[in-house]
Amino acid sequence: MLNVGIVGATGYAGEQLVWILQNHPEVQVKFYSSHNYANVQFSDVYSNYFGFINDKCINIEEAENRLSEIDVLFIALPHGKAFKLTKRALEIGIKVIDLGADFRLKSEENYEAWYGLKHEFTASLESAVYGLTELKRKEIKKCNLLANPGCYPTATILALAPLLHNNLIFTDSIIIDAKSGVSGAGRAAVIGSLFTECNESIKAYGVTTHRHTPEIEQELSVISNSNIVVSFTPHLVPMNRGILSTCYGNLKTSLNTKDILEIYKDFYKEEYFVKIIEGIPETKWVKGSNLCHIGLRVDERTNRVIVVSAIDNLIKGAAGQAVQNMNVMFGINETMGLEFIAMAP
Amino acid sequence: MLNVGIVGATGYAGEQLVWILQNHPEVQVKFYSSHNYANVQFSDVYSNYFGFINDKCINIEEAENRLSEIDVLFIALPHGKAFKLTKRALEIGIKVIDLGADFRLKSEENYEAWYGLKHEFTASLESAVYGLTELKRKEIKKCNLLANPGCYPTATILALAPLLHNNLIFTDSIIIDAKSGVSGAGRAAVIGSLFTECNESIKAYGVTTHRHTPEIEQELSVISNSNIVVSFTPHLVPMNRGILSTCYGNLKTSLNTKDILEIYKDFYKEEYFVKIIEGIPETKWVKGSNLCHIGLRVDERTNRVIVVSAIDNLIKGAAGQAVQNMNVMFGINETMGLEFIAMAP
Amino acid sequence: MLNVGIVGATGYAGEQLVWILQNHPEVQVKFYSSHNYANVQFSDVYSNYFGFINDKCINIEEAENRLSEIDVLFIALPHGKAFKLTKRALEIGIKVIDLGADFRLKSEENYEAWYGLKHEFTASLESAVYGLTELKRKEIKKCNLLANPGCYPTATILALAPLLHNNLIFTDSIIIDAKSGVSGAGRAAVIGSLFTECNESIKAYGVTTHRHTPEIEQELSVISNSNIVVSFTPHLVPMNRGILSTCYGNLKTSLNTKDILEIYKDFYKEEYFVKIIEGIPETKWVKGSNLCHIGLRVDERTNRVIVVSAIDNLIKGAAGQAVQNMNVMFGINETMGLEFIAMAP
Amino acid sequence: MLNVGIVGATGYAGEQLVWILQNHPEVQVKFYSSHNYANVQFSDVYSNYFGFINDKCINIEEAENRLSEIDVLFIALPHGKAFKLTKRALEIGIKVIDLGADFRLKSEENYEAWYGLKHEFTASLESAVYGLTELKRKEIKKCNLLANPGCYPTATILALAPLLHNNLIFTDSIIIDAKSGVSGAGRAAVIGSLFTECNESIKAYGVTTHRHTPEIEQELSVISNSNIVVSFTPHLVPMNRGILSTCYGNLKTSLNTKDILEIYKDFYKEEYFVKIIEGIPETKWVKGSNLCHIGLRVDERTNRVIVVSAIDNLIKGAAGQAVQNMNVMFGINETMGLEFIAMAP
Repeated sequence: MLNVGIVGATGYAGEQLVWILQNHPEVQVKFYSSHNYANVQFSDVYSNYFGFINDKCINIEEAENRLSEIDVLFIALPHGKAFKLTKRALEIGIKVIDLGADFRLKSEENYEAWYGLKHEFTASLESAVYGLTELKRKEIKKCNLLANPGCYPTATILALAPLLHNNLIFTDSIIIDAKSGVSGAGRAAVIGSLFTECNESIKAYGVTTHRHTPEIEQELSVISNSNIVVSFTPHLVPMNRGILSTCYGNLKTSLNTKDILEIYKDFYKEEYFVKIIEGIPETKWVKGSNLCHIGLRVDERTNRVIVVSAIDNLIKGAAGQAVQNMNVMFGINETMGLEFIAMAP
Repeated sequence: MLNVGIVGATGYAGEQLVWILQNHPEVQVKFYSSHNYANVQFSDVYSNYFGFINDKCINIEEAENRLSEIDVLFIALPHGKAFKLTKRALEIGIKVIDLGADFRLKSEENYEAWYGLKHEFTASLESAVYGLTELKRKEIKKCNLLANPGCYPTATILALAPLLHNNLIFTDSIIIDAKSGVSGAGRAAVIGSLFTECNESIKAYGVTTHRHTPEIEQELSVISNSNIVVSFTPHLVPMNRGILSTCYGNLKTSLNTKDILEIYKDFYKEEYFVKIIEGIPETKWVKGSNLCHIGLRVDERTNRVIVVSAIDNLIKGAAGQAVQNMNVMFGINETMGLEFIAMAP
Repeated sequence: MLNVGIVGATGYAGEQLVWILQNHPEVQVKFYSSHNYANVQFSDVYSNYFGFINDKCINIEEAENRLSEIDVLFIALPHGKAFKLTKRALEIGIKVIDLGADFRLKSEENYEAWYGLKHEFTASLESAVYGLTELKRKEIKKCNLLANPGCYPTATILALAPLLHNNLIFTDSIIIDAKSGVSGAGRAAVIGSLFTECNESIKAYGVTTHRHTPEIEQELSVISNSNIVVSFTPHLVPMNRGILSTCYGNLKTSLNTKDILEIYKDFYKEEYFVKIIEGIPETKWVKGSNLCHIGLRVDERTNRVIVVSAIDNLIKGAAGQAVQNMNVMFGINETMGLEFIAMAP
Repeated sequence: MLNVGIVGATGYAGEQLVWILQNHPEVQVKFYSSHNYANVQFSDVYSNYFGFINDKCINIEEAENRLSEIDVLFIALPHGKAFKLTKRALEIGIKVIDLGADFRLKSEENYEAWYGLKHEFTASLESAVYGLTELKRKEIKKCNLLANPGCYPTATILALAPLLHNNLIFTDSIIIDAKSGVSGAGRAAVIGSLFTECNESIKAYGVTTHRHTPEIEQELSVISNSNIVVSFTPHLVPMNRGILSTCYGNLKTSLNTKDILEIYKDFYKEEYFVKIIEGIPETKWVKGSNLCHIGLRVDERTNRVIVVSAIDNLIKGAAGQAVQNMNVMFGINETMGLEFIAMAP
């Protein structure tokens, strides 16, 4: 039985961790930490837990004091908020899974350029593992500090990896047009996230400047063994959950849809959570699951390939992948606690 | 291990049965029957099952031929469609759980008046058990034909039972103003259920004529040992899932909110799936779970009590309660396969 | 040509005033005042006005200084924020239309009890007119301070007025179960109004305590010439706009649906904005219009009448009715600038 | 005063025509024709017109018989349904505005390849004008048969025209990733358009095969005086209205965002309905209006330009542009009846 602590438990990613771990047979949650709701009963914030979780949230200082009770610490905080806690936990031998952005980029310069913030724990950057489980399983097994991927990068890297691994597209031709539900914006009280501001509308945002760009580029570059720069445009969609990533690349040779589907099926043939489908993904078929659906078409008129992937941004794009990584890190069956199917409708 | 057959597996209630049974440790589904999708792979209708369920749907005749493979038959068809199949299954000793309306009303006249249809298996009406699990556990244990309650009645009867059981309100004062998500209308291709027709609007429908009325009255009458007639007004809300039932009654004596909350907590103190909360329910806190949240307030200015209950119409209001009833009927732990918490947001 | 000032122009009700007045042939808006966006261009807050309105918002002090430019002042602020400004405007002979709650209740005690706030301009309470246009046209014509009704009261009073005017129901039997879109909560950055908190859920709120209750009771009491107390339960529905009010009353005599429909048609026969329909209202058919649709059914089994009314909460429930009142106050054709039909879908 | 007939009046585009023409000062609608609702009162299909339009719908044969009453015929039918009616109307000197696809493509072969249907009025293809008003005003003035553009093409061509007109991008680099509300699918009773199937999900559809592709390519080719082939991927978004088109192109030279914004502002400087904004468009700011908002960014890291345009698919993408074209065809002020601002929220 693993003892677990969650910091940032009342944000949406944090709550999803609670949701998953509540039914994980090998986990016991020892504490729930929350900046805004310290000393408030967790089930007063999320009433779905009424009668199931009676704990009060603790603050981050108390969380630090109780590190000795746990084997692994999940951190679901905004970037820049947990350098100290992470360092402390690692020092005393506790594994850390960070759902935030602080340890995803290998380059300190890149971090500071895109996040506008000095990195305060650069010593960790080399050993931290970027935890896209399907692509990094070996490293994850041995790591102590796991940087859980962003939601857009998870959907996008899984969609593009087989193309780049097999050297099928021109690396300077990649365009990623991604769409996310509103939970991706977190549980912050801002005008832009109000129901009345998001409902019945779609917009692009962060055009050319979104912080998930360098993370996507870093990992695609590793896969292709080249220096990849992409155009990445995220959009906000009026739904709670889900990411759809529509990825475009120019094919180097003339392949048809069927050819490339075979390559994808082969690439992911051992994977439980990645499904290559004949059709085109819809987010509803993965909502509430840890799955990633991938479909594709070759546009023979332009010799482009269009790959579409769908995930639940809060699960495979955050808490689910974090638990998947925990399972790998601790030698537990990788799918344990994650074998639920999308809830439709 | 129970062997199970599902008829009407591609409707929303049927699909929810699949969703729940897929993870039920004591169940194996032997066949999925569907009128519209006979011979189509189940996962081609519901892609969330891609890679998990490879069966093709069969038609109802084939289902009848394969009754011998199963211990229990779930029927999730529109009313009037399964008289013959039910009779056949019972004859050969298979327990039947009907999610439709055909066996809910004890009175043949009532059935024919509200459903405009001749009942073709009246011999079963006496022995069929109305399966509101929390109120009928004893009878359910022994029954062979279980009439699974409607969604509105489930929410409403649970909300009002403690008041009537304790004789606290005037029985002619009951008004039920209920609200449902669109999945309650089923998966039929009709103009009125189109996204563009339902979204950004709320309406009342079936005012004074909704078929769940006699079912509510029948069961409330049993509880109060009197002949209860209610006003029941359902509304359609632009969301996929959830029912909120707002129930009004005039108190016989002067009780305050706290008094009545205590009575409710006591009434449901042994129940896993019914939670009495201090606040007022919201459907999101039960969405995706088999729970019913109940909250209430006494309006001291009018001496009315206002009880609000929330369920997921497809789970506690349909498939979840059906599985709960199956567990009871077969002596399995009542909560097995149903211990999931609402998915928020 | 009327010169108009708007205070609170960047809230949702304020913005709707702008939307309507922009196309009103007899109106020129002289200033837009906003607490949060003073000195910001109005079209930077609401980009739909880009290229149409180039004004910057001013603050409330500047608005006060520019009162002399205008004939009528619209105030769309939270309660308690405009006592001083109202007084000042009236002193210098400018008519005031207040979309807030400060001048709706005739009783100072009632105001202070329900709003928890001392009323700072009680001298105005007697002369202020409660502007439910259809019922108060004569008084509105002559008034200087118009208290524009709340959204729920507008829908509800219009629904119940014919019953009470004709003494058809027991006055102690009235139950109002109302449902509103999220714009009713205003444009405030609070967690409870986030997309992810409201979407895919319905809840009751302010049960027995909502501030629109005394306003409804005051006006129904006037109509019935008795002292009416009601049960009023508002609900939050995941849609931007619209209020549906479902009203219940016990009939004194035995009337059928047709009888009462005739009474309603007669009562509203001269009204452009109130339509008595044979069916049951849906908010989508009034969304974006100043109309109120009313439908009803007699429940002969219980001898109750169920009246359902639908309005757009931001138009007939706020800005539209305010402009309708302005038209009446200034002797302009009552429907001018308001003759638009609901936008569907 | 123009006399107008509408065929296909009960589809969403048809209803929008009614909505706009109802308030157009120079128009009188003589008949409403509907296949599914012939002989039904129009306001029984769309209750927002209750009390405003008392006409019954007629069928298409009756419409043909009454052509002599009108000056202009709007056709809002699925493709392939109005060849005969169009021919007949033109023969007797009535101008036709077709909101369908039958006369948009100049090439008969193209039509038959993409629509899988024989064109039955090829004689008209040369003289028919593709009515993207801002780009074809001169031809529209003189035409008798106007092919009203598709919704996606309207948004997309307006977004890309300045780039191609000024020869700024490589013509083989164009990728269009577009997103539409569900009303784009029309008012057909199909499973895929159900609330429960569309809500809380986003999907791509028609990948590489959508019928708006040749229309976009035809018009972009005209502007650039070259043969353009594009990748076009539409997506379905859970909202009623709105199209957002995100367009990507590789710049031929090094220009920055400001440079290109100036080119756009200049290109559209005389246009009332096209607004170049500094920010990035959201569909909510044009919903309910005939406007097109365009914003853009240069991605200096990849030397791509990303242009985003937003329209209301039912107005500028259908009925609004049709009326705009009618105004031009009949020498009426182009903006008449179309000067309404987006309804927010």
